[in-house]
Amino acid sequence: MAFSSLLSRLRSCSKPFCNNLRTSIIQRPHNPSSLIEPVICSRNGKTPLWFASLIPLAFAVSAGSLSLNDAPLSDPKSVKIGGKGSTDYAVKGSRREVPPELIEELKGICQENMTTDEDERYVHGKPQNSFHKAVNIPDVVVYPRSGEEVSKIVKSCNLHKVPVVPYGGATSIEGHTLSPNGGVCIDMTLMNRVKALHVEDMDVVVEPGIGWMELNEYLEPYGLFFPLDPGPGATIGGMCATRCSGSLAVRYGTMRDNVINLKVVLADGEVMKTASRARKSAAGYDLTRLMIGSEGTLGVITGITLRLQKLPQSSVVSRVELLDEVQIRAINLANDKKLPEIPTLMFEFVGTEAYAREQTQIVQKIASEHNGTDFVFAEEPEEKKELWKIRKEALWACFAMKPNFEAMITDVCVPLSHLAELISRSKQELDASPLTCTVIAHAGDGNFHTVVLFDPTKEEQRREAERLNHFMVHLALSMEGTCTGEHGVGTGKMKYLEKELGIENLRTMKKIKDALDPNNIMNPGKLIPPHVCF
Amino acid sequence: MAFSSLLSRLRSCSKPFCNNLRTSIIQRPHNPSSLIEPVICSRNGKTPLWFASLIPLAFAVSAGSLSLNDAPLSDPKSVKIGGKGSTDYAVKGSRREVPPELIEELKGICQENMTTDEDERYVHGKPQNSFHKAVNIPDVVVYPRSGEEVSKIVKSCNLHKVPVVPYGGATSIEGHTLSPNGGVCIDMTLMNRVKALHVEDMDVVVEPGIGWMELNEYLEPYGLFFPLDPGPGATIGGMCATRCSGSLAVRYGTMRDNVINLKVVLADGEVMKTASRARKSAAGYDLTRLMIGSEGTLGVITGITLRLQKLPQSSVVSRVELLDEVQIRAINLANDKKLPEIPTLMFEFVGTEAYAREQTQIVQKIASEHNGTDFVFAEEPEEKKELWKIRKEALWACFAMKPNFEAMITDVCVPLSHLAELISRSKQELDASPLTCTVIAHAGDGNFHTVVLFDPTKEEQRREAERLNHFMVHLALSMEGTCTGEHGVGTGKMKYLEKELGIENLRTMKKIKDALDPNNIMNPGKLIPPHVCF
Repeated sequence: MAFSSLLSRLRSCSKPFCNNLRTSIIQRPHNPSSLIEPVICSRNGKTPLWFASLIPLAFAVSAGSLSLNDAPLSDPKSVKIGGKGSTDYAVKGSRREVPPELIEELKGICQENMTTDEDERYVHGKPQNSFHKAVNIPDVVVYPRSGEEVSKIVKSCNLHKVPVVPYGGATSIEGHTLSPNGGVCIDMTLMNRVKALHVEDMDVVVEPGIGWMELNEYLEPYGLFFPLDPGPGATIGGMCATRCSGSLAVRYGTMRDNVINLKVVLADGEVMKTASRARKSAAGYDLTRLMIGSEGTLGVITGITLRLQKLPQSSVVSRVELLDEVQIRAINLANDKKLPEIPTLMFEFVGTEAYAREQTQIVQKIASEHNGTDFVFAEEPEEKKELWKIRKEALWACFAMKPNFEAMITDVCVPLSHLAELISRSKQELDASPLTCTVIAHAGDGNFHTVVLFDPTKEEQRREAERLNHFMVHLALSMEGTCTGEHGVGTGKMKYLEKELGIENLRTMKKIKDALDPNNIMNPGKLIPPHVCF
Repeated sequence: MAFSSLLSRLRSCSKPFCNNLRTSIIQRPHNPSSLIEPVICSRNGKTPLWFASLIPLAFAVSAGSLSLNDAPLSDPKSVKIGGKGSTDYAVKGSRREVPPELIEELKGICQENMTTDEDERYVHGKPQNSFHKAVNIPDVVVYPRSGEEVSKIVKSCNLHKVPVVPYGGATSIEGHTLSPNGGVCIDMTLMNRVKALHVEDMDVVVEPGIGWMELNEYLEPYGLFFPLDPGPGATIGGMCATRCSGSLAVRYGTMRDNVINLKVVLADGEVMKTASRARKSAAGYDLTRLMIGSEGTLGVITGITLRLQKLPQSSVVSRVELLDEVQIRAINLANDKKLPEIPTLMFEFVGTEAYAREQTQIVQKIASEHNGTDFVFAEEPEEKKELWKIRKEALWACFAMKPNFEAMITDVCVPLSHLAELISRSKQELDASPLTCTVIAHAGDGNFHTVVLFDPTKEEQRREAERLNHFMVHLALSMEGTCTGEHGVGTGKMKYLEKELGIENLRTMKKIKDALDPNNIMNPGKLIPPHVCF
C-alpha cells in the first residue's frame, strides 16, 4: 500500500475524532493491520457507548442459500467499459488559476486557518477510500470557523471565479472531494459544534463538521440518538451533501428524512435558510431536499437541524444486513473468529422487549422455512456490540485480507422484489472473476454493496473491477433500480445517470445548477455529466 | 350560501368519485344540509371499507385542559393586516389573451375533452372550500387522457406563452387552482388509473387524477394502503403538488416521504422522470422532492409511484388529534351526538394487538396524570369507524352549524415544545373574537388548524377572520414554526414566506422557477411572492 493511501485512510478514520491527531498520524509507520483498531475507537479511546445502548436485542442467522437462488435468471445486460464509461472520465478539466489577490483575501478571512502547504493540499486532493484517480489537487485549503467565514470565502471565490470544494470527513468513495480544477478546498473540520439541543422537540442544531459518532456520544446522556450510521468518520455535513443512509435506513429513513432544515452558503456567498424548525411544512419548494444529495454543487452547508430519535428500549426491524461467505471469511481472518463461512443475515430489532422477542420468533420461523441454519442470538450488550463491531469493520477486514490492495466498493439499489435476482446473478459474476469480492447488503432496503479487491499496480485488475462494477450497475438499472443507493454520484457514477434518469432529468438538474451557480464554481466536475446541455 | 359556493363544494366532494356526477350535481337544489352526507360516501354509495380495516384499536380521551394551559404566556407578535397582507393581493394580474390558434391546437389534441363553456370555466376558476376571491377564470378547460396529451397541451401553451393551471380534486384552500391570468386549466380527472401495482415491492404506479380514497379501495384486497388522509376528494396528483399530509403523518410521514418517483411534464412540454423505482437513491438532485410541494409552478405531474404500507394488525401512535369544545359542539349538533363538550384528544394506535394495548395503557396513565377525564375506548370496528367518521366530517359539521357562512381554515405548524403555548394563546384570541371558531390539531405533528366561520356578506367579519389568521401565523413564526403545515402556499400564504424563510430562500426559489419556466406559464401568481427579484 502506498504511503499516500495509508495516509488517506488514517485521516479519514481519525479526522472527526480529533483534529490534533493529524500530525501524529502522518508520522505513524506503515502498518496496515493497525488500521483496524482506530476505526471503532472513539476520541477518548473507549469503545463508543452508543453502540452498546442502541442495540438491545440482536441476533445473526446463517441463512444458507436463503433467497439467493429463489429468483429466475435472465440474460444480463451487455456491459461496456472504457471510453465514456471509464470511472474517471469526468474529472479532467483545465486548472483554473488562483490569483494572489484571492490568497490574500482568504488570509484576511481565515488568518492562520489556511494553508498552501503541498502535503496538506495533496491529502485534501486525493480521494479517500476510493479508487478514483486525482488529476489535480486544490491550490489552497481553508478551515473556516463559522458560517460567516464560509460566506466570505465563497463570495471571494465567486468574484474570482475560482472553484470551491467543500470537504467533510472525506469518507465518500465516488470522488466527491476531488479538485479536478484545483481551487479552494473548504475543510469543515473546525465547524464541529452542537449549537442547540431541543430535547422536547427531539431535534438538534449542529455545524457540518461534527461526526455522527461524536454527535451520538453527545446525545447519549439525553436518551436520544441520530439514527444514520454510515462509515466511521463521516460528518453530518457530508452526510447531507451525499444523501447518505446506512444500515438503519430501513427503519429510520435516509438523510432525506431526518433533516429539518439547513443553512447554506450559496454560490454568490449569500446565506440561505431552507426551512423553519417545524417538523413538517408546505411552505414553498423543498430546498432542504434539493440541497441534500447535491454534493456541494449548489452551495456549502454550514448548519443543520436534525430530527432525533429516542434510544429504543428494545419493536420493528431496524436493520437487515447480508454478508456472503467471502466477507465472513475476511471477518474471521481479521478478528480471529470462527463464524461459519456461509452467507449470513444479521437482523436487529428495536422497541419494547416483548415486541422485539415476538419479531425475533417470527423471523426465526421464516428463516427455518427457507432452510436457514445456525441461529445465533445475541442478547447481552457485549455480544451485540461484538456483532455490530464486526459488521462495521467489514471493509477493514477486507483490507486486512489483502493488505496492499485497493477496493472498488459498489452500491446499487433495486426494488425489493428484484434483490434476490440481483444478488444471485452478481454473485455468479463475482465468483467467476479472478478478483476477490465480498458481498455486504442492506437487504431491507434493496441496497446491495460488494467490495472488489484489486492490486492497484496491475491495470488489468483495475479494469476487471470496473467491469464488475459496470455489470452490477447495468443489471440494477435493468431492474428499475439506481446506480447509487447511498454513496452518491461524485465523479464515479455520472456516466450512468442518463441511462437511469433520462436526459430531461439531467437537463433539469443542469438548469438548476446554472441558475444557482452561474460561474460553476461549486464543486465543478461532479454529479452533472459534462455532456448535458440544453 | 350562494349557489356558486354550493356548486363548488359539491364538485369538490363528488369529483374524484364519479365524473358523470357533474351534470346531476349542477342541477341539484340549494340545500346545504345535503352537503354532509356525500363527503363520507364512496363512489358506490357504500361506506369505505378502508376506514373499518385501518383502525384496529382507537380511543378518545377527553382531556380537560390537558396541555392547553401548561406553557407560559408572553406577548403576542404585533399583527398587521390589509395592504400587502391582504389574502388575495397576489392573484391580480393582467389577463393574457388565448389566441384562436391555441384553441384549435387544443381541440386537435383533446378532441371532445375540452370546453370553453362559461359554467365549466367558472367552476374551475372559483376556489373550492376557500375564502380567496377569484379575479379571473380560465379561458379553456381541457381534460387530457394521457401524459402524452398533457405534454402536447403544455408545449402548445408554452409556444403561445399562455398560462397553465393544473387542476386535481380542487380541495386545496389557499387558492392553488385560481386562474388569475386566465389561460388553460388542465383538469386531470380523466387520468385516474392505476398503472401498475407491485405487491412485493409495496409500491403502486398511478395517474394523478385518482383520489386517495379510491386508491385505498383498490388496494384493500391486497392488504395494502396508502397512509395519507387529507380531505375527502383530494387526488394523488394534487396531494403531491401541495406536499399534503393529514392526520396519519405523525406515523407515516407526509407526501414527501411516501413518493418514490414522479413523471412530470415540464414547462417546455418535455417529459421528465424524477427517479428510479428503488426505495432509496443518491443519484443526483432530489427532483422528486423539488416537485412535491411546487404547486404546479414547475410542471404538471402526470405519473406517480407511491410507497404503500401493510394494513396494520393493530404498535406506535399513528394519530393524535385534538378537538376543542366548540368543535365538539359542532359535531354534536351535526351528528345528533352527546359527546362531552370539552377539549378532546383522539388517539389511534396501530401494529400488533398486544403492543397497541400496552400503548393505550401508557397514554391513559399520562392523561390521568394531567387531569384528563372521561376515557372512551373504541375497540369494535363500528365504534372506530364512527369515531373517525366524526373527525373526518368536522369541517362539514361546522358548516352545518352556520349554514350560510364561509370558513377560513388556518394551518400553522410549530416545534412540538411550542404547541401548547400556540394553542393556548390562539384560543384566548379566538374566544375573545365575535366569530365562531373551532380548533382541530394534528397534535402529534405540532400542526394546528382552526376553522373560523364568517358571513361572507359582511366585510368586517371577513376582516376579523383574516386578523385571526394573521395572528396565528405570526405567533407560529415567532416560535420557529411555519405559516403552512400542510395546506401549502397558493395565493394565501405568499405574504408570510419572506418572514418565515428569508429573502435568499425566495430568491433561490425564483431562480429555479425562472430556469425551469422562463415564460412563467406554470400556474403563475402562486407560491413565489411577486416582489421577489434578484
